[in-house]
Amino acid sequence: MARAKSDTRARAQAVAKELFLQQGVRRTSLQDIADRLGITKPALYYHFSSRDELVRSIVQPLIEDGDAFVAAAEARPDADPRAVLEGYFDFQFAHREVVSLLIGELVALADLGLVGRVLDWRTRLSALLVGEDPPLSAATRATIALGGLADCVLVFADEPVEEVRAAAVDAALDTLGR
Amino acid sequence: MARAKSDTRARAQAVAKELFLQQGVRRTSLQDIADRLGITKPALYYHFSSRDELVRSIVQPLIEDGDAFVAAAEARPDADPRAVLEGYFDFQFAHREVVSLLIGELVALADLGLVGRVLDWRTRLSALLVGEDPPLSAATRATIALGGLADCVLVFADEPVEEVRAAAVDAALDTLGR
Repeated sequence: MARAKSDTRARAQAVAKELFLQQGVRRTSLQDIADRLGITKPALYYHFSSRDELVRSIVQPLIEDGDAFVAAAEARPDADPRAVLEGYFDFQFAHREVVSLLIGELVALADLGLVGRVLDWRTRLSALLVGEDPPLSAATRATIALGGLADCVLVFADEPVEEVRAAAVDAALDTLGR
Repeated sequence: MARAKSDTRARAQAVAKELFLQQGVRRTSLQDIADRLGITKPALYYHFSSRDELVRSIVQPLIEDGDAFVAAAEARPDADPRAVLEGYFDFQFAHREVVSLLIGELVALADLGLVGRVLDWRTRLSALLVGEDPPLSAATRATIALGGLADCVLVFADEPVEEVRAAAVDAALDTLGR
């Protein structure tokens, strides 16, 4: 019986993740998830009292793994930067589905189609920076340069913008190997 | 009279942006916005038939400027990469409020506190890569390296992960000046 209960919980999370990815969190009700599972809504409520609780349970492993990864990296302060970056990549990769799900919520916001637009802009700017159909090594450089620049605007919002701009553009040029 | 109408529209957008930034889009109703403006909800409806329409009207300038910036860059394919990167930075900076507003929606999602967590991880990893209290030039490099790596996981989801990982980590190391 305990087995069946934990099965239902895990199945509900899997079905919810699938529906959230397909149609967005806000367009997915607990009723939709119960229907897909072939159980009643009260049976689902037994495991998750709200959709938010279900979302939290899906995102929780990412939070725990992130905390653990960063703490482990801090425990080896002499580690090679390459090892830190590889570990961070692996962590992001392990949780790519959940990250996509969260970004999908931005897509859903007011049906803006904004994320698709931003990706289109980056593809076209990337073509300007490293050419059309670049090899993967050049394409990743353009992605890092453009994505990183955008991050700097938000992360260093309290610093003088001219200094941030100069520092970030220089770093992005080094990323491109220029 | 036409003047008063367009004033109300612009004031509604300004008030909405402020409330959205403070408390999130989903926690702000058209009634909240009308109350803050000191007008009736029907008077607000005259300008915006839904909250989604109001959100779209606030995000629209970002979309138009992005389209225009990318098209202008494409019209000068021989431009220096530095000029492209500087232009992209300026575009992001001009629209930082709207971008913050959209990212704030992720914060609001299920009250996960996830964005704050991700920023905390990046700060701590940055300290490992470029030291505590780094100069801005080093801090921007760490932000670009980490943010760019995370982007690569999503942008190159269809490429062989081992190749993406190797290319992205090499590029991030160059960003760090390693």
